[in-house]
Amino acid sequence: MNYAKDFSRVTQSMGSSMIRELVASTKNIEGLISFAGGFPAPATFPKDTLAELYKKVVQEDGYDVLQYGASEGDRQLKAELIKWEGYPITPEEMLITVGATNAIYLYSRALLDPGDVVICEAPTFLGSLVVFDSIQAELVSVPINDDGISIQHLEAAVQRCKQAGKRVKFIYTIPDFHNPGGVTMSMARRRELIAFAIRNEIGILEDNPYSRLRFSGEPLPTLYQVNRDEFAGFEVVTEVVSFSKILGPGMRMSFAKGAKSLIAKMESWQQKVNVTPDCVSQRVVARFLADGHMEGHLKMVNEHYAPYLKTMLDKLEEYMPEGVKWTKPQGGIFVWLELPKHISADDIFPKAAENKVSFIPGSKFYPVGQEEFNTLRLNFTFSSFEQIDTGIRRLAELLKAL
Amino acid sequence: MNYAKDFSRVTQSMGSSMIRELVASTKNIEGLISFAGGFPAPATFPKDTLAELYKKVVQEDGYDVLQYGASEGDRQLKAELIKWEGYPITPEEMLITVGATNAIYLYSRALLDPGDVVICEAPTFLGSLVVFDSIQAELVSVPINDDGISIQHLEAAVQRCKQAGKRVKFIYTIPDFHNPGGVTMSMARRRELIAFAIRNEIGILEDNPYSRLRFSGEPLPTLYQVNRDEFAGFEVVTEVVSFSKILGPGMRMSFAKGAKSLIAKMESWQQKVNVTPDCVSQRVVARFLADGHMEGHLKMVNEHYAPYLKTMLDKLEEYMPEGVKWTKPQGGIFVWLELPKHISADDIFPKAAENKVSFIPGSKFYPVGQEEFNTLRLNFTFSSFEQIDTGIRRLAELLKAL
Repeated sequence: MNYAKDFSRVTQSMGSSMIRELVASTKNIEGLISFAGGFPAPATFPKDTLAELYKKVVQEDGYDVLQYGASEGDRQLKAELIKWEGYPITPEEMLITVGATNAIYLYSRALLDPGDVVICEAPTFLGSLVVFDSIQAELVSVPINDDGISIQHLEAAVQRCKQAGKRVKFIYTIPDFHNPGGVTMSMARRRELIAFAIRNEIGILEDNPYSRLRFSGEPLPTLYQVNRDEFAGFEVVTEVVSFSKILGPGMRMSFAKGAKSLIAKMESWQQKVNVTPDCVSQRVVARFLADGHMEGHLKMVNEHYAPYLKTMLDKLEEYMPEGVKWTKPQGGIFVWLELPKHISADDIFPKAAENKVSFIPGSKFYPVGQEEFNTLRLNFTFSSFEQIDTGIRRLAELLKAL
Repeated sequence: MNYAKDFSRVTQSMGSSMIRELVASTKNIEGLISFAGGFPAPATFPKDTLAELYKKVVQEDGYDVLQYGASEGDRQLKAELIKWEGYPITPEEMLITVGATNAIYLYSRALLDPGDVVICEAPTFLGSLVVFDSIQAELVSVPINDDGISIQHLEAAVQRCKQAGKRVKFIYTIPDFHNPGGVTMSMARRRELIAFAIRNEIGILEDNPYSRLRFSGEPLPTLYQVNRDEFAGFEVVTEVVSFSKILGPGMRMSFAKGAKSLIAKMESWQQKVNVTPDCVSQRVVARFLADGHMEGHLKMVNEHYAPYLKTMLDKLEEYMPEGVKWTKPQGGIFVWLELPKHISADDIFPKAAENKVSFIPGSKFYPVGQEEFNTLRLNFTFSSFEQIDTGIRRLAELLKAL
């Protein structure tokens, strides 16, 4: 049977991941120092505690957690999450999902018809763009600056969509320690964005994998909280919180918070997509929180990462030629570099690989046709101090030679 | 924000589950004996072994299984699955999924455009129908008899679709211990079905949650195996094997086997839907198999269930009035009852609930508009012997009174 002719139209249009291909192209280079990935450091996984909890949960709650669970997620986990966040919401305003991408997928399915517009930040996380793309949404990108998404550009973009008769369903944003942009949205910008969304009846999908990875400075309330605290009665924000960077992505554990009616529809999709997330891992996270492990664990994770960020920023300062700029985040896992306008990170990628250093060219973080080329993303959580030193020096030398 | 007007068209058309509502309607009846569910018996969960394995896996392989995994699934698990099944396929012909529904969802996304036809058996598993429905497929049902799906009716149905200019993408079938029909497809029918599918270039989606739950008689090769062994070079069958009924549905662990090109597209969808299944639970299943637990475990499970099936069949024989027929399966978890033509199981459902016995009316297992009403499904894996005795007596008394 020749399946190729039978694949659905969307399936036929799916390309392979450019980032995967880029990373694969450098796979066999010996001694390569890669800042390309977005992997958390294994040293931050609380594996001994989790090992004990998995055993306890299956032994003590096995008849429950090995059985079919609720599509909305484990009620015990929800109760612990609400306590942990210390923010009063009801379980019906929350859905447990198989990682953040699953939450973003279910949210998108609940809202998007083919041709609907999703506004995304430029640059933004590619993994979400391919989700929106798989539902045949139209992607419109709006630039970010030091304070987050540009409201001026956002207004113009929405205006253009409306004039073209298109429905803008939601704005996808990563307000804290942006991937790949590294910036954190200011408090004023948070308010402006929510007010804009309410005025225009557009949803906001807040992707929050990094806000707990803060090494310095004061945390800001999430868009979801600002929405509820300051714009009560106008629920536009749905927040997706992931445990991938703070416990371990292999557990595939995330949760979404939003309006009850929307959460109910996302749950309805979850029944069709997965039935439920893994019930064992859900209860393990519940116990991890209930037993009070999270606070100390997060402190450890942040103390672990802080010197890697510092090293990367120090080495950039030390080695980079004039004309190269970069973000100075207070947390997260990425630094974003801006090269002089005439230099394309795509062009230098193969040369860098020859010099045994790797990154992701910035162009990969924009919708097709809306790329910028003089930027690149560096990850600092998966390399040693020595590798950061050597890798940044190699990259700087290459840039100096241009 | 009024989300209702923003939900996608498919989302707006989604009803709540009729079966959930039925089950919910009997929730507070004290002393109700329910044969309605499809839950495995907790006594069959190998919870002590799994508790030890979860601990070992996280402790020994934690840096690996807590990290991001491959969207195709854990390579160690794939290797163990291939060994366990003793059937030579390559890892590229296999995808690990978040339970069987997830596999069915990804398969359907890979193949279906809105309006494409899916042929299903009548009756069939409702959970899959809602998946096809969520992709706006048209469902066409074909009756089953004692040997499985009727090829004569199948031919006529496909003919009608073709004449109407519709694309029939695949046939969804449960060949072993059918849910809800209880029958197992004969060897001759398996061959006929595959030959038909090849002739007409239609895929076959083989749902296999029950074939290992065989209490007596000889197992038959799955459609996937018959396809490869006897029709080599014409890969029409994709088989979905679930661990829900043999390890525990809370682990959400299943795998699909099929043509490489199709598995690759399902993996591409998995990247967008979940990224990967839970990596911890995947490795636990790999270890469970590698350590040789499965053979003895399955023996225990089947020895556990056999007397419950025997009790149900004995009590049906003892109590049921003339004119009521039922399947006599050699495994699985369901018995299917056929009432005299003039009796509707939907009509007697509320009376049965008053008499403190519950089941699922057969009409719930057909596409909307294609229902039959004089049938019902009984589950025998979640009640005690006494409950089976009392429940079947109550149901029989009600039927006698009609």
